[in-house]
Amino acid sequence: METVYLNGTFLPSAEALISPNDRGFLFADGVYEVMRWYEKGFLAAQLHQNRLKRSLHEIRLYSAEADKFLSIAGELISRNNLEGQQALVYIQITRGTAPRTHQFPLPPVTPTCYAFARAINPEQNESILGVNVGLVNDIRWSRCDIKSIALLPNILAYQEAVEKGFHENLFVRNGVITEATHSNIFYVRNGKVLTHPESVYILSGITRKLVIDLCCKLNIPVEERAISSDELPYVEEAFLTSTSAEVLPVTHLEGVPIGSGLAGPVTSQLQIAFREMVEREIQTV
Amino acid sequence: METVYLNGTFLPSAEALISPNDRGFLFADGVYEVMRWYEKGFLAAQLHQNRLKRSLHEIRLYSAEADKFLSIAGELISRNNLEGQQALVYIQITRGTAPRTHQFPLPPVTPTCYAFARAINPEQNESILGVNVGLVNDIRWSRCDIKSIALLPNILAYQEAVEKGFHENLFVRNGVITEATHSNIFYVRNGKVLTHPESVYILSGITRKLVIDLCCKLNIPVEERAISSDELPYVEEAFLTSTSAEVLPVTHLEGVPIGSGLAGPVTSQLQIAFREMVEREIQTV
Repeated sequence: METVYLNGTFLPSAEALISPNDRGFLFADGVYEVMRWYEKGFLAAQLHQNRLKRSLHEIRLYSAEADKFLSIAGELISRNNLEGQQALVYIQITRGTAPRTHQFPLPPVTPTCYAFARAINPEQNESILGVNVGLVNDIRWSRCDIKSIALLPNILAYQEAVEKGFHENLFVRNGVITEATHSNIFYVRNGKVLTHPESVYILSGITRKLVIDLCCKLNIPVEERAISSDELPYVEEAFLTSTSAEVLPVTHLEGVPIGSGLAGPVTSQLQIAFREMVEREIQTV
Repeated sequence: METVYLNGTFLPSAEALISPNDRGFLFADGVYEVMRWYEKGFLAAQLHQNRLKRSLHEIRLYSAEADKFLSIAGELISRNNLEGQQALVYIQITRGTAPRTHQFPLPPVTPTCYAFARAINPEQNESILGVNVGLVNDIRWSRCDIKSIALLPNILAYQEAVEKGFHENLFVRNGVITEATHSNIFYVRNGKVLTHPESVYILSGITRKLVIDLCCKLNIPVEERAISSDELPYVEEAFLTSTSAEVLPVTHLEGVPIGSGLAGPVTSQLQIAFREMVEREIQTV
């Protein structure tokens, strides 16, 4: 039986229960974070914790649980016997349980904190062969930089992708590709790596940041510049980045090859460099 | 002790518990509805049920609970001894509990249905004296016609209003006033009643529709036309509509009087007509 964390207690998943008056359930009034466990350590734990705190700050919620995130995460790995495995730790903090009213509870109530860990099996084939993605209108709100649980727009866009046989959908806002439904998107054009700049229209991905850093270390030219969906057919390579999928080649757009239709050389170089970076970082945990 | 409804059962509120793996909690993957009880009957029950079904349809969720909404609502009134009182019934339906993944659960799981009833005390003073509202950027997604529980943007905009001493904030998108954080907005200009047309940028309010119908019956010219925030200082009257507040005069914009700074004659006429309509409708329940 999976052990999860809820409001200070580690308990069997089936015993973890919340009130339907939780503001996370009634209003999506909360934020979350997902961190990757690599057999013996977390990658970029501090960056994830910092982002969690930033998300909380942006929705004006303070929770002492955010300071405990790393110890909660470690305990979840341990209690679920995930050492030696690949796993994700998920944490969500909401504004707590109170009678339903739009206003923040006054006096404030204790935030709700829920966390769990789960083993994952990264799909090796996709990371070699690449994936096919679609395009969808980005109708989300204009604070996508906050990792909020108000994910219904992402859910609907991702479900549409799945049903069309796409690995992901890319969001297009005013003609510009912002990001994917749960990943950031990069391109290679004229030998330069491109990705949408940090803004309110994308989540500032941790893997996105790590990949930009790797480009700098590897002397690969990199620029934070958005591209239009019209420009997409002309890029040489494209790839997605996310905490769970790392660097994932995008070889087709709605079935049409991007570049050679195979994982490109820059993408492959970054995949290898990313894995080497993981090995180094995890060694030092 | 309040009696609530959860997944087919009426039970004390404190005993109503859901899993934190409910997709309503993890993803805001659900919709809701609020219906008004007037002492001995619901107003516009069928319209609320129809809108609930439409919201479910738009997020591609089917729940048999939507067909039971009116009987659930009546039972909540009865079990909470709300006959003879003013009350609201709230219902929320989510895509159910499943291990966290963006994709809809496959095979589908049973949706979660939560409902409660609560006595309200309509604020008589505000409905006579009117309220002061603010303006805020409308940064919400572009499917505001769906009554979804992804309400974090509304929460943040409403909290800002409260802290500035405003009754509500009006959302402004591309210079145009769409609606308020949990109401629709109407204006009177040159003797004509105006309100934003139905679109993906507003919720199609039940009270909004009832008020438009009343205008037609009363031979008050009415037009579904949006106005810009620049035009707001020049309107003669403004009022909010919502299930809980009915018709509420807006007399000030960020402290500056609108028109005379008092509830206007058309607003008052519609308030009276609304109350009379309620009396008629509830008699026939």
